Amino acid sequence: MRIAVLGGDGYCGWATALHLSATGHSVAIVDNFARRQWDHELGAETLTPIRPLAERLRVWRAVTGNTIELFVGDVTDFDFLASAIRELEPEAVVHFAEQRSAPYSMIDRNHAVFTQVNNVVGTLNLLFAIREFAPDCHLVKLGTMGEYGTPNIDIEEGYIKIQHNGRSDVVPYPKQPGSFYHLSKVHDSHNIMFTCKVWGLRATDLNQGIVYGTVTDEATLDDTFVNRFDYDEIFGTVLNRFCVQAAVGHPLTVYGKGGQTRGFLDIRDTVRCIEIACLNPADRGECRVFNQFTEQFSILEIAQMVKKAGKELGLSVEINHLADPRVEAEEHYYNAKHSKLLDLGLEPHFLSHSLLDSLLNIALKYRDRIDTSLIQPRVNWRRTRNKLRSQERATQYSDILR
Amino acid sequence: MRIAVLGGDGYCGWATALHLSATGHSVAIVDNFARRQWDHELGAETLTPIRPLAERLRVWRAVTGNTIELFVGDVTDFDFLASAIRELEPEAVVHFAEQRSAPYSMIDRNHAVFTQVNNVVGTLNLLFAIREFAPDCHLVKLGTMGEYGTPNIDIEEGYIKIQHNGRSDVVPYPKQPGSFYHLSKVHDSHNIMFTCKVWGLRATDLNQGIVYGTVTDEATLDDTFVNRFDYDEIFGTVLNRFCVQAAVGHPLTVYGKGGQTRGFLDIRDTVRCIEIACLNPADRGECRVFNQFTEQFSILEIAQMVKKAGKELGLSVEINHLADPRVEAEEHYYNAKHSKLLDLGLEPHFLSHSLLDSLLNIALKYRDRIDTSLIQPRVNWRRTRNKLRSQERATQYSDILR
Repeated sequence: MRIAVLGGDGYCGWATALHLSATGHSVAIVDNFARRQWDHELGAETLTPIRPLAERLRVWRAVTGNTIELFVGDVTDFDFLASAIRELEPEAVVHFAEQRSAPYSMIDRNHAVFTQVNNVVGTLNLLFAIREFAPDCHLVKLGTMGEYGTPNIDIEEGYIKIQHNGRSDVVPYPKQPGSFYHLSKVHDSHNIMFTCKVWGLRATDLNQGIVYGTVTDEATLDDTFVNRFDYDEIFGTVLNRFCVQAAVGHPLTVYGKGGQTRGFLDIRDTVRCIEIACLNPADRGECRVFNQFTEQFSILEIAQMVKKAGKELGLSVEINHLADPRVEAEEHYYNAKHSKLLDLGLEPHFLSHSLLDSLLNIALKYRDRIDTSLIQPRVNWRRTRNKLRSQERATQYSDILR
Repeated sequence: MRIAVLGGDGYCGWATALHLSATGHSVAIVDNFARRQWDHELGAETLTPIRPLAERLRVWRAVTGNTIELFVGDVTDFDFLASAIRELEPEAVVHFAEQRSAPYSMIDRNHAVFTQVNNVVGTLNLLFAIREFAPDCHLVKLGTMGEYGTPNIDIEEGYIKIQHNGRSDVVPYPKQPGSFYHLSKVHDSHNIMFTCKVWGLRATDLNQGIVYGTVTDEATLDDTFVNRFDYDEIFGTVLNRFCVQAAVGHPLTVYGKGGQTRGFLDIRDTVRCIEIACLNPADRGECRVFNQFTEQFSILEIAQMVKKAGKELGLSVEINHLADPRVEAEEHYYNAKHSKLLDLGLEPHFLSHSLLDSLLNIALKYRDRIDTSLIQPRVNWRRTRNKLRSQERATQYSDILR
């Protein structure tokens, strides 16, 4: 299958591109290296020493014999994106090419506006490009479980049947996102649903949980393929962060009570979910939603698991409860459905088995590269600024976010 | 009360600014004349000969003794907007300053992206400006009944109590908007709800129905105050359009079966609803939603009422059923609640009483100004383009949209 991976140089995108290439698909990456640029802006670095994309792709070809094509450009540039889609004629487009950090979107007004315009316009451009140049192409779009928020009822997969005043209807599940980033994904979801209806596009919106780990079968074939492992406050996901904190003896940064419950998945399942979605396309006119996670935990449970696993490795791990820098329920009901990908054949990896191999040992392996100044949260939801103090952008995170 | 009216040179905004000024409030208009620019772009003109804003305000002062302040600029320019809010310290901001036409947003990709970026960024800027410079200010934001779409259950005012799998919660009412414009309002609603929660802003989101009429008490004080009356396909609302069509003997342009049912209100009720919202502010942290309309009709019912009223004036009115250029249900259940503004004291004008005086007679009065080439629909939801043929923007509507 011809598959374009937009954002294929990022954390989930890179692992996905390799997996799809390894499983026999013809893969092209579209990327503008924005994710590497944000590292420079924030003065942060991935724990793992990632290589330039050109080198990654050259070695991938040498090691596997498979070519991954590369289109360098920005999806918010319609002429670029349209020419890529026209040239590739993809059967599926996997769209990771968005700003995906909630704290980044909450730094200040510029970052909030950037996140929403970047994500919404990129996705609108993609919808128009598909409609015009590859109308039968299946859009596989990364959404987030964070679109739903934490309602006091079960979370369904995208739609819910409502009984109301003696009538009933199946309607889009109500959204209560918790950051300007999560809001941008909600905006995307509505836009995608609309274009499926009016233009007959086919789309799968994957509401992904919190991804952890860095090890996939393909990324371990050669050191050149090593994937990102972000542990800074802005781009690091919670489990990756806790493992790094454990590795350097930093108390785990639990926000508030830690009763915040979320869906989680191993990055090995991310790549498999994407493959499953591609192999089982939505119908024309269908906007299908899958909840893409395998287990749900509270943040405190995660911290306790890391503490226990650390102990097995001889690490003494403390748990700290910080004042929650976000505005969110610290204790709440949470029961999110996630059966559709399982029904299509997903065989989950479970955290209890991955924690040591794929997480803690990686953190220990690269312990010398850990910059502990990146650990403490500095972006506060209640105090999103209009402007950063000295400059608007492109200043070191550690200087400006205090 | 100090009230800023953003978009105060437009159709609803102008009528509102005058009404608030006449009822004793200290009013400032913020506008960039985008609405007049779109007339130039489309080669369309309001039926009524509106005057430049500077003249309108000069004569308003001469006639009433009241000064309406004017700030000329674009709400997507944060520095401009922030300085206006800082200077005005408004107690309420009424936000009409958005691109408000569904067909305009469906012309091509540029117009779709413009509509969403313009509306979303303008509203984000306003939220940040209020938070920083007038945190106690009440945001009165114009949404649209079109955010809800046409679900098969009753439409509530913004929120709905859902019983699901033995639990219940009150959640935002699910949205199913029908154009890139309506989508932009849904994006706004989510953004506003979020900032009320995290920053404690106070907001009233007014989901307005289709406004008709041009006559308000204030606009009739002097010819200089005459309000817009749009009848072109892009900016004309359906009832205004039908009255103009009747006045020139053009068959009424009912799209499809005409069973599309919507909420409607007289522009005299629009201005009163805004005043009621300002006088009864939301609490800090509250994002309140009112459905702002007074009666619901199907398009075919509207056409039949115009036909009957036309007969009383000696006009022979035919009804044509055109292929629907939109993608929408042509017959559907529709029962939308709208009691909250009535509970706060709204006394509605009803269409049956306004149709002759405020609509048909205005259309007849200005019959010589009607350009019949603007009547037929040309923007088709199924065929939104990537680009207009010869140029991207700023070309005559009648030339490019065929």
